[in-house]
Amino acid sequence: MLTSIGYAAHTAETPLAPFTFERREPGPHDVQIEILYCGVCHSDLHTARNEWHNTIYPSVPGHEIVGRVTKVGTHVKNFKVGEMAGVGCMVDSCQSCPSCAQDLEQYCETGFVGTYNGEDKHSGGVTLGGYSNNIVVSEKFVLHISDKLDPASAAPLLCAGITTYSPLRHWKVSKGHKVGIVGLGGLGHMGVKIAHAMGAHVVLFTTSPGKTEDALRLGADEVVVSKDPEQMAQHVNSFDFILNTVAAPHNLDNFLGLLKLDGSMTLVGAPAEPHPSPNVFSLIMKRRSLAGSLIGGIKETQEMLDFCAEHGITSDIELIPIQDINLAYERMLKSDVKYRFVIDMASLAKEKSTA
Amino acid sequence: MLTSIGYAAHTAETPLAPFTFERREPGPHDVQIEILYCGVCHSDLHTARNEWHNTIYPSVPGHEIVGRVTKVGTHVKNFKVGEMAGVGCMVDSCQSCPSCAQDLEQYCETGFVGTYNGEDKHSGGVTLGGYSNNIVVSEKFVLHISDKLDPASAAPLLCAGITTYSPLRHWKVSKGHKVGIVGLGGLGHMGVKIAHAMGAHVVLFTTSPGKTEDALRLGADEVVVSKDPEQMAQHVNSFDFILNTVAAPHNLDNFLGLLKLDGSMTLVGAPAEPHPSPNVFSLIMKRRSLAGSLIGGIKETQEMLDFCAEHGITSDIELIPIQDINLAYERMLKSDVKYRFVIDMASLAKEKSTA
Repeated sequence: MLTSIGYAAHTAETPLAPFTFERREPGPHDVQIEILYCGVCHSDLHTARNEWHNTIYPSVPGHEIVGRVTKVGTHVKNFKVGEMAGVGCMVDSCQSCPSCAQDLEQYCETGFVGTYNGEDKHSGGVTLGGYSNNIVVSEKFVLHISDKLDPASAAPLLCAGITTYSPLRHWKVSKGHKVGIVGLGGLGHMGVKIAHAMGAHVVLFTTSPGKTEDALRLGADEVVVSKDPEQMAQHVNSFDFILNTVAAPHNLDNFLGLLKLDGSMTLVGAPAEPHPSPNVFSLIMKRRSLAGSLIGGIKETQEMLDFCAEHGITSDIELIPIQDINLAYERMLKSDVKYRFVIDMASLAKEKSTA
Repeated sequence: MLTSIGYAAHTAETPLAPFTFERREPGPHDVQIEILYCGVCHSDLHTARNEWHNTIYPSVPGHEIVGRVTKVGTHVKNFKVGEMAGVGCMVDSCQSCPSCAQDLEQYCETGFVGTYNGEDKHSGGVTLGGYSNNIVVSEKFVLHISDKLDPASAAPLLCAGITTYSPLRHWKVSKGHKVGIVGLGGLGHMGVKIAHAMGAHVVLFTTSPGKTEDALRLGADEVVVSKDPEQMAQHVNSFDFILNTVAAPHNLDNFLGLLKLDGSMTLVGAPAEPHPSPNVFSLIMKRRSLAGSLIGGIKETQEMLDFCAEHGITSDIELIPIQDINLAYERMLKSDVKYRFVIDMASLAKEKSTA
């Protein structure tokens, strides 16, 4: 077995703390990665605190992983020792259902295996994520990270990047389209950058007028303060597509009414309490759709990473030592981050001596 | 002016009663129709009773009109005196916005003119509908009714037929698709017939087990009692498309969960009180969509009428004299109709002498 050191939540109520555990040695199809950076996603916090009521402790969060390949199994073809590699939200799926056959492992009919808190098919236990110094993953779920990308700020592409890229691609966003991005957080700021790079006219919706300057810098063509009915009214019936990244409950009709005929609004955030029920007339009167989208498949994640390398897109990040993770969670809850925390895993070295 | 006799609501609280009024003489582009049959839609009742808070009285409902052409304007090219013709929910639109340019007058950006309770561009007053002995309509909003169709049972095609046909076509229902129809009322029974004729495997959802036999007779391949969780569970993740015709508030998640990857459920009924808010996870986990659809454009209405003539499809109706309209409304409220009331306008003759 391979000894790993990381940070784990041991109960819902206690802070994350150092944790030593074992991973499998890489099998013939596996890639072993020395983790250099791991982004901090809101899902990490939900899981650490058992807010989805399914956490198995101890739990090591982290699914925005970038590192260097240190070992490959005998049958691994696409990765070599020394290369940069990434791991996102999934480390396995059935590989045989219609969704997997379409390279849409995120919709695997038997359920994909999450990078953490998933059912580990190899150990029979639970998967443990990227807040750690290494990970072993089946080659099929490992991504290539271009040398053009800064590895620390590329880490959030593995979840925030693909979660916004996939619906923008699926709903065929391109030049000539007017696209709205609701919310300027970890997901929203990636949505702005990617939609802009796809050639769309990008409008960022925010409740915070103070975010205007930043949104324009990130690539938005316009910023609308969504709590100002006059600003909103100027955009009625005009959007081809709206990507809604806000997980807090809010009135969806305010945004549905901005879609033109046959327009869609896609939700990528899921609130703990439901949104107010949308007005059916908002949908009927312009044949509009309200949809949802979940991360993206592995093939599309590679496509996104290559697209980002080509367009020079990474996340705006704040690099932290792993010892600050609990503080980072508190700041995330106050949206006090521009726009993603990324853990510098070099900081784990300090723990090793005491583990 | 042209003298018309019909039945009108004079207030929200009083029963419909005989009413004599005037229509314009047909202009160069108009068609005058002697109304033979008019279907009774739930919207008629909503309008008669001011349930949408916008009724202008006196109000003559009726937008499922079939009759015979009795006069045509000098520039009318496509209709001749003596032919059978139909009028649906619209009698005018701007004819110049992007929606109208796409033959989607129902989504006209300045609002289409309803067959009743609309703003009459000719008289400056309000449009008066099909519960009457004649109507004058711009040629562009008049439909051809094939001699193959029984005119009485064809009348409901003008609203119930197109309202179900249009979304089934738009979402590309065809052979090999598994399609759900929710509700077996005026709209639902048309949905079953049309989806069956399009070649789909049709599953009818109903809360009434007693409707099973009828649904199978109408063309359903399967019937699912939607309040039985076991029956519902057998269909999880299996539908390409669901057409939901139920206007009463109900749990949408029960149906969204039956859609496969990328499946859509489209609502054509709008409840007075909102549906319980759908669970965002129902949309996210399979990239599903919840959409709405409103009747259909004039070109598509003609396509639907021709499709129905080709496939021998009409509505199952109960023919009533106009004197029974108030009783019919009471029975509609109890869903006591299989499946559409149609007024035999010959019954108006009785009123003429007393008007």
